[in-house]
Formats: sequence, C-alpha cells, structure tokens
Amino acid sequence: MTIGLLLSYDANHQHVVSISIFVAVLCLSVVSGHCFSQSRWTSESAIAILIGCIAGMGILLFSRGKSSHILMFDAELFFTYLLPPIIFNAGFGMKKKQFFHNFITIMLLGGTGVFISTAIIVAGCWWLFPKIGFNGLGIREYLALGAIFSSTDTVCILHVLSQDQTPRLYSLLFGEGVVNDATAVVFFKVFRKINVSKIGGGVAFHVLWDFLWLFLASTAFGVAIGLLTALTLKTFYFGRHSTNREVALLMLMAYLSYVLAELLTLSVILTVFFCGILMSHYAWYNITEHSRVTTRHILSTLSFIAETFIFLYVGMDVFDIEKWKMIDMSVKKIFGLNFILFILVGLGRAAFVFPLCSLSNFISSDAERSMLTLKHQVIIWWAGLTRGAVSIALAYKQFTISGVTWNPLHSTMITSTISIVLFTNLVLGIFTKPLVSLLTHQTQNNNEQQDTFPKEELILPLLSSDKDSTSSSFVLVRRSLSALMETLVHTIHFYWRKFDDACMRPFFGGLAVPVWEPSE
Amino acid sequence: MTIGLLLSYDANHQHVVSISIFVAVLCLSVVSGHCFSQSRWTSESAIAILIGCIAGMGILLFSRGKSSHILMFDAELFFTYLLPPIIFNAGFGMKKKQFFHNFITIMLLGGTGVFISTAIIVAGCWWLFPKIGFNGLGIREYLALGAIFSSTDTVCILHVLSQDQTPRLYSLLFGEGVVNDATAVVFFKVFRKINVSKIGGGVAFHVLWDFLWLFLASTAFGVAIGLLTALTLKTFYFGRHSTNREVALLMLMAYLSYVLAELLTLSVILTVFFCGILMSHYAWYNITEHSRVTTRHILSTLSFIAETFIFLYVGMDVFDIEKWKMIDMSVKKIFGLNFILFILVGLGRAAFVFPLCSLSNFISSDAERSMLTLKHQVIIWWAGLTRGAVSIALAYKQFTISGVTWNPLHSTMITSTISIVLFTNLVLGIFTKPLVSLLTHQTQNNNEQQDTFPKEELILPLLSSDKDSTSSSFVLVRRSLSALMETLVHTIHFYWRKFDDACMRPFFGGLAVPVWEPSE
Repeated sequence: MTIGLLLSYDANHQHVVSISIFVAVLCLSVVSGHCFSQSRWTSESAIAILIGCIAGMGILLFSRGKSSHILMFDAELFFTYLLPPIIFNAGFGMKKKQFFHNFITIMLLGGTGVFISTAIIVAGCWWLFPKIGFNGLGIREYLALGAIFSSTDTVCILHVLSQDQTPRLYSLLFGEGVVNDATAVVFFKVFRKINVSKIGGGVAFHVLWDFLWLFLASTAFGVAIGLLTALTLKTFYFGRHSTNREVALLMLMAYLSYVLAELLTLSVILTVFFCGILMSHYAWYNITEHSRVTTRHILSTLSFIAETFIFLYVGMDVFDIEKWKMIDMSVKKIFGLNFILFILVGLGRAAFVFPLCSLSNFISSDAERSMLTLKHQVIIWWAGLTRGAVSIALAYKQFTISGVTWNPLHSTMITSTISIVLFTNLVLGIFTKPLVSLLTHQTQNNNEQQDTFPKEELILPLLSSDKDSTSSSFVLVRRSLSALMETLVHTIHFYWRKFDDACMRPFFGGLAVPVWEPSE
Repeated sequence: MTIGLLLSYDANHQHVVSISIFVAVLCLSVVSGHCFSQSRWTSESAIAILIGCIAGMGILLFSRGKSSHILMFDAELFFTYLLPPIIFNAGFGMKKKQFFHNFITIMLLGGTGVFISTAIIVAGCWWLFPKIGFNGLGIREYLALGAIFSSTDTVCILHVLSQDQTPRLYSLLFGEGVVNDATAVVFFKVFRKINVSKIGGGVAFHVLWDFLWLFLASTAFGVAIGLLTALTLKTFYFGRHSTNREVALLMLMAYLSYVLAELLTLSVILTVFFCGILMSHYAWYNITEHSRVTTRHILSTLSFIAETFIFLYVGMDVFDIEKWKMIDMSVKKIFGLNFILFILVGLGRAAFVFPLCSLSNFISSDAERSMLTLKHQVIIWWAGLTRGAVSIALAYKQFTISGVTWNPLHSTMITSTISIVLFTNLVLGIFTKPLVSLLTHQTQNNNEQQDTFPKEELILPLLSSDKDSTSSSFVLVRRSLSALMETLVHTIHFYWRKFDDACMRPFFGGLAVPVWEPSE
C-alpha cells in the first residue's frame, strides 16, 4: 500500500526515476573504478564510459527503444555544475611553482596552439567535407567545428600522469588543458557572434583582442575573490575558530566567484581556476587543521564525482538513438567523415605541439631546466589527442536547441563528436598508460632531478649558466635570448617572492607561524 | 567591452542575478552569525532572518516594488535540497544512546503529540475563524492548517540547547522535532487524499495505519541502505584506501537513500535520518581517519549552509508583496486571525506536552533516570512553540500552485503562516536562551549525572531499584509497571548490544580495533 503523492510529485516521478538510476550507476562506477584502478590497460574514465554505455543500452532495451531522453546530454548542466568544481579543485590542488615556472610554455600551447589547431581543422573540413559528398554546413558551423575539436580532455590527462613522478609534464599538460578549454570556449562564443558576411583580417584581430581581455579580466577577478576570502577569514576568525563556518565561507565564496564570473560574462573556467590558486595560497592558511583536511577532500571528492559523472554521461549518451536514426548517410560515408575529423585532430595538434615545444626549448636555457625532448613532445601530442566532455557540450550547444535537432546534418555532427570522443578515450586510451610509462621510464630520474631543482634556485644569484662552451653565432644568439628570458622570469619571481613574503602573506595569510592557538 | 553571450545565457540572466545576490547575502549571514554567536539575546537563526528581511526590502525598493518573484519561497527546493542534508547530518551526528534511551518518550511526543495538536488546531480554527468573520475555507484546508501549524522547527532548537550540557533535553527535543516533522508531513499528505465526503472513524484509523506503515517501512529502508554502504566500504576497501572514493561513496549512498525513498513514496525525513544513524554506527568505522574528519565536517557544513539558507529564505519571503496586496481584510481582522492561530499553537502544544511528559514519568522508574520536572516540561513546551520552514513549505504547497495564488483567502493563510513563523522566531526567540539557561541552571548538575549514568548501567544486572520504601497500592502499581517497562527496555538493549558486538559489528564494521593499517 502506498501513501498519497503530493500533486507536484506526479510530474516529477520520471525525473526521480532517472536520478535514482543515475546515482546507482554512479555508485557502481566508483566501486568498479576502485577495482580496476591498478590495471595497466584501462583507466577509470574508460571504465566509467563503458559502464555508462552498458547502462544506456540497458535502459534503451528496457524502454524498448522508444525514448532515450532519459540519457540526453545537457550542456547547461555540464558547464554549470560539473566543470566548475573540477577546475576549482585543479587550481586549489595544483603545484603552483611548477605552473608558474612553465607559464610561457603553457600559454604558448594552450593559447596559440588552439588558434593553430582551429585554423587547420576549419580549413581541413572546408576542403575535405565536400569531397566525400558531405555538403550543407555554413561557415559559422565550420568555425564552430574548429573550436569543438580543438578542446582537449583535461580530466583524462590527470588520470594517466602522476603529479609526483613527472611533475613538469603533468603541469604542462594540465595547464595546457585548462587554458585550452578556456580558449576553445571563448573562440566558440566569439564565432557565434561573428558577422559572417564580413570575414577578414579584422575578425582575427577581434578574436585575439577578446581573448586577451577575457583572459586578463577573468584572472584579475578570480584573484580578487580569492584575496577577499583570505582577508575575511583572517579578519573575522581571529582567535575564535569554527570549522563549519570556515568551510562554508570558503565553499560559498568559490561558488560566488563562479556565479559572478557568469554574471559579468567572464570566462568561468579561468576565474574559478585562479580563485582556487589564490585560496590555496592564502585563505587555506587562515583556517583550522580540520577545516584544511575537510576543504582539501571536499574539493577533490566533488571533482572526482563530477569527473565520473561526466564519463558516465558520455557513455550513456552513445545511445542517443534519435540522432543516430536521423542520419541519412551510408556507413562508408560516416566512417570517412569520422576518419577525416580524427586525422585533422591529430594534424592540428601536431602542427602546434612540435613547433611550439621547440620554440619553448629555444628560449629557455639548458641549465635552467632540461629541454622538452622528442619523447616528451610525443607524450604531449598523444595525451592531448583525447577529446572529452567539453567537445560534446559545445557540439550540443552548436547543433541542437535544448538537446533536440531535426536537421540530419546536425545529427551527424553530434554523433561524429560522440564517435571521436569514444574512439580517443577507449581505443587511444588503452595505449596511453603503456606509452607514457615506456617513454617516461628512461627520463624519469632525470626529470625528478630537474623538478626539485628550482626550489633553491629562486633565491640563488641569477645568470650562472656557463657550462656550455660551444660558441657558434647561432648558439650565441640563442644563449643571449635564453639569458634574457631567464633574467626576466627570475627577476619577476624574485621580486614577487619578496613582495609576497613582506606584504601579501602577513596581510592575507600564509605565514609559516600559525595565527591561531595550537589548542584549538 | 563584453564578450558575446551564448543564446541560452540570455534567458538565464535573471536567474544568475538572483543566485549571485543570494550567495552574497548567504556569505554575509555566515560572517554576521559568527560576530553575534556569543550574544545572549539573539540566535544565529534570528540574525539570518533579519538579514533576509533587510535584503528582501532592499531588493523590493531597488525594483521599485514591481516584482518580488526573485524572493519566492519554493517548497520543492526546500524539501528536495535543504531539508535532507539537515536531517541526515542530525542522524549522523546524534548521540544514539540518548536517542534510543528516550525512544518511547520521543515517539509519544513526536507521534501522538502531533495527533493531539492537529486535532486542537483544526477544531479551534473551525470554531473560531467564522466568529471573526473569516469564512470560506473547506474542510480539507482546515485539516491542512492543523498539519501546517503542528510541525515545530527542528533547526532552531538545536541552536539554543547544548548537546553536551543538557543531553537528555536536547535528545528529547531534537528527536521529537524529527519525528514531529515526519508525522506532520505524512498527515499533510494523507489529508490531501482524504475523501472529504466520507469522514468518520475510518479516516482516523486510516491515518494511523498509514503513519505506522510509513514509519516502519521508511526506517527499515534507511537501515538497509546504511548497512549496504557499510558492507560495501568494508568489502571493497580492504587494505587499500582512497579518501576521495570513500567520501564519494558515502555521500552518494546517502543521496541514493533519499532519492529511492522519494521514488518508493516513503517518508524521506525518516529514511534519511535512520540511514545517517546506521552510517555513523557502522560505515564510519570502515574509512580512513581523513575520510572521517571530512565526512563529519562536510555533513555539518552542508547542514549549516542549508539552515542559514532556510532562515534567509524565510526572511526574504516576508516581502512577498503580491500576497500582502491581495488580502482584503482590515488590520484588526488580520491581527485577530494571527492571534487565534498563535493561541491555538500554544494550546495544542500544551495539550500534549504536559500530559505525555507525565505519562512518560509514570512509566519510567526513579532509579533509571530523573523525572521530567515541570521546568523541563516548560522548556519542551516553549522551545517547541517555534514554527519554521516546514510550516511555510507546507503552507505554500497547500495554498499556492508553484508559489502563485489569486485567491485572497489563500494569500491570507500564507501571510499568516509567515507572521507566526516570524513572531515565534524573532519575538519568542529572544526569550528562549535566557529562559533555557534560567531553568536548566539549577538542574544542570543533576542532569549531567543522570546522563552519564546509563553508560555502565546497560551491562549491570537489571532490576535493582529498591531505594523507595513507600508502599501505597498506587505506588505499587506504578512501580510494577515501571519495572516491566524497564525490564523490557533493558532486555532489548542488552540483547541488542550482545548481537551488535557479536554479529553486526564484525560484519558491517565498527570494532574498536581498526581494520586498516595505522600507517595509512
């Protein structure tokens, strides 16, 4: 016997069923991920995608292929609830020294790289799609495809590399991932408001200007909120601590940075990322030990759940049967289309990873840190081939209205995006772990040494790299350029450190000496 | 200059503005609550309500009285997102020994009490409303009013009493609050499906039967999910721990218990409450030290945020200007209506607190625990007069459709509920802290002694209360009844303890010896 339902309950019943199934499957993935976490050939993300596929198939069979709306990917949900905690946690848990040391390389790969990759993908699609008889896309849609297939999967990379074993590679790939996502989303936004009739040099300049403005404004805003939080915690909690209030304030301010960035139409990803960095650098030191443990683990748990959620979601979305049914193309043509897209993704990434890494090697001196060897570059190229939830979310934004489309071309683009994401995650993903361990094995010791090196170096006198005695004019030019860059970077670091220790930390928190009584 | 907005963004702009304002005000309340937390005359809840009022007035002035939809109380939001974490945390953080020791009294007050209170409020409204010229409510609406004004504010009580200083009173009032909320919500549900044309003795029986079934089924379901979680954590995390996964699994299973209870149309409050108790009794012992700290604080922080949110919400809701405008009654009549409701609330509570406490005293022996003195009974009566968010949420459910109503009678009922909630929180609230400290001051030492007493007692031989030597027949009857109850309770406790230690704990977790390596 049952109790009478509230009126509004009836309407929500289907919704509650979906949530129940989803949460149960999520629990299952957490447990399965744990069981397979030591495996060499699978990653947790691949397992979550597979479980998602199985669950999706099960639901489809159970509903007799009628409707798959229960599984529909919701781009709003993704950008609103799932991505921010992942990015905030990334900023909060990141090794800041590594990130800022590799700042120039990261900006080259994540910023300039997306320009190059987008250009190649757009040009390639424009040239090749009509050749296999796939016509009908407009220029705005070609541009959107460029942004969609240029955003790498930040999450997947984090699972494959270890921050402790290969900190430099981790920091480079991860930093690139965040900047790359932000850039791709900004491009996507800009492309949507481009006036298609007047495309020229001005547009490229406009895109660049928008990107720079957005980057600086979002960073500054995230930094401001982070500092405000640190100051509030330091001022109000002087001498009297309450774990609940501290944790609550930290979480609420993080969320506030996110909603305000959304309100000010800034880049949410960048704001949240820099807010996380600032909070972990200052605010974290103004709270009790229990609050620190709690904050650290709340954030990484939220991030973990969001990641698992996303991969499950992608897996379940494979059986968006309505879109598959709508495609009126031969299997051969679909295969050709996906092949072209995949090759363009690979080419687009190769076209900026290898040149830009070489440039990065050129402008940094040997003594400072080792070169990015060809092996490193291959890892960077390969690991960044994976396309993830950002691509899918952007594709749904571009080619559907609230997840629904009646245009066969648009359905094809959605299913192609899903196919590329599945292929790069499941097929390429199998080889990523072995490849990375093969390539980093020899260089690991070397790497570890380099990575612990900069710690003391920052306060050592600058410009002491006189080991190399070759003196061709090319090497001389290179050395003087390197020296200039190094001096610049070192000077900034040196004065920042001085300023941070003398002014920022005493004011915002983060001194070695705790500000509260040890008894609390 | 701004960056192009996504299409869907435009539609959400107003929504983002509301959220931003709300989160900012929430941060402000957390900080203000901290500043005033030592004050004798205010409670944090009163401060949150006041800040909510001020913010609501500010928004209303800023929008020039046009629309107050930004502030509308959403009953779904309340029952779906705000109440469950509070109740789960209550179960998780509760002193279980106290709760189960006072189980009979709690069930008397929380279960039977609501019956009595509802009956008095319904009868009183039925008799008095027409006398002041307020006609037009149907029988279903009178019944709903009984349920709406019988649910006490669980949250407010917790702020006033201390679990460490007066554990028995805290446990009684808190336990009553949870059972009371559950009962009131169940009554409300049942009343909504009553066939008004055939009201008779059968209906009362039906309501009782529904309540019992719901109570047992919800408890059993919560217990089952709690045990499943404990077992999963124990089985899968054998020897290899991961804080993120453990915390994630615990939170997801708690959420799953909630959605499944909703799906099975059980009482969400009871399921979540018992799931929390079971998880803290077994599952909590199967996880790492970091996971324990994190879980404990995540839950209490979530609960803290939800509570602050609710009080802010209630405060902001005072200026639901559309409902106030719609009332076509004189100020005198409105005042009379609210006065009647308030007197009925007080009478309804007095009518069950004093008799049922006396009954509870009658069936429990002196040696076991002290009587509930008149002072205790006054505290229980007074503290439970406060009406809170559950009342408001139920009123919105009954008298509006998605927060909107065009019926002046219904608008009047909404504003009366808000007035009673404000009055009991802000005006009565001022005297609660002084009253409690005045009345508990003398009995505190006595109380503490009693409360630590049962610890060893459970394993002592039963039936040893031979202090009293009066021997009138009444006392004899009473003593034998007490002895019977005590024997029953003690026997159950004793065998439960034995069973728990011998079978449950080794299987589900919770042994004194940790199951993981101390190094982790």
